[in-house]
Amino acid sequence: MQEKGLLIVLSGPSGVGKGTVRKEIFSQPDTSFEYSISMTTRNPREGEVHGVDYFFKSREEFEELISQGKLLEYAEYVGNYYGTPVDYVRETLEAGKDVFLEIEVKGAKQVREKFPEGLFIFLMPPSLTELKNRIVTRGTETEDLINNRMLTAREEIEMMHLYDYVVENDQVELACERIKAIVTAEHCRRERVEQRYIKLLEAE
Amino acid sequence: MQEKGLLIVLSGPSGVGKGTVRKEIFSQPDTSFEYSISMTTRNPREGEVHGVDYFFKSREEFEELISQGKLLEYAEYVGNYYGTPVDYVRETLEAGKDVFLEIEVKGAKQVREKFPEGLFIFLMPPSLTELKNRIVTRGTETEDLINNRMLTAREEIEMMHLYDYVVENDQVELACERIKAIVTAEHCRRERVEQRYIKLLEAE
Repeated sequence: MQEKGLLIVLSGPSGVGKGTVRKEIFSQPDTSFEYSISMTTRNPREGEVHGVDYFFKSREEFEELISQGKLLEYAEYVGNYYGTPVDYVRETLEAGKDVFLEIEVKGAKQVREKFPEGLFIFLMPPSLTELKNRIVTRGTETEDLINNRMLTAREEIEMMHLYDYVVENDQVELACERIKAIVTAEHCRRERVEQRYIKLLEAE
Repeated sequence: MQEKGLLIVLSGPSGVGKGTVRKEIFSQPDTSFEYSISMTTRNPREGEVHGVDYFFKSREEFEELISQGKLLEYAEYVGNYYGTPVDYVRETLEAGKDVFLEIEVKGAKQVREKFPEGLFIFLMPPSLTELKNRIVTRGTETEDLINNRMLTAREEIEMMHLYDYVVENDQVELACERIKAIVTAEHCRRERVEQRYIKLLEAE
């Protein structure tokens, strides 16, 4: 009996460290779930590899995929599209494997509508002060832009109620451990496994 | 803000290995929850220590505690009482610590009625055949008694629907890992932590 995989969605306010946590999770050899690579129309940065970091597409290709309904979620940021190809997600789940998405809060909202049974994890900064520090430390942004991002972060944090779990990103290793514990626990939820056990017992 | 601890209840059919799993969990230095020691009227076996393995009580003392409502759950097995002192559980939870009970299925049902918000984990044998092997291997029981225990086990497994999680006891270490993951995950559940984060943000 092939059980469907879990769709795991990691999101949270911009600057919280979603990418760092995701990279750490997938650098660990015992991670048992598959990473769904995003698609983008922005140019590759130095060292980024097509099919590893992103699928790089032209604007025309991306819009064609949108119109064909081939994206589970997508959004435009600073003039570039980012999105999640839906076929990979569906096929991997059908094959019984867990799929992991690391996406923005707006995208997570779209996914929740299509996959309400997914596992939605909100990555939380230890404090807004700490979030601001992280954004400031990147050093690339003006004060206006920083204040703007902090406003957005507050709005994003208000979306927490759409999630199943909240994981504090106080330390990357701890955040990863918690996320993996959540996936392990979900695989033990009674509603998910009860029928399988009942069938096994009936067969004995 | 002091959050209340979680009440963690491990139960499952007789013979599944609840005691072994519990001992393994509490032999691990990183286990962060407190074990609630049961009370019994049976005589101590060799090596058992009062206040470590059990609180050993006379029948009169035990019945006095029942009539005073001092037991969270209790049951009689083979002429002896077994039960969970309620004061320790309440005080430890109020102090913000998680409390772990390892009890029989009947007792777990009583606890669910009093603490519906508890975390109920059902320890499951890999198969009924395996459960029978484990009971037979103990070597102390006649065939009639074994068949009787298998019938009881089937009835106990039918109580699974009262639980939040089902953990297979295929390997003790794996079962312990899953149980600890469930506790970690529950501490991240959005319903549980949302208010705390909202208050923290408002304070900033």
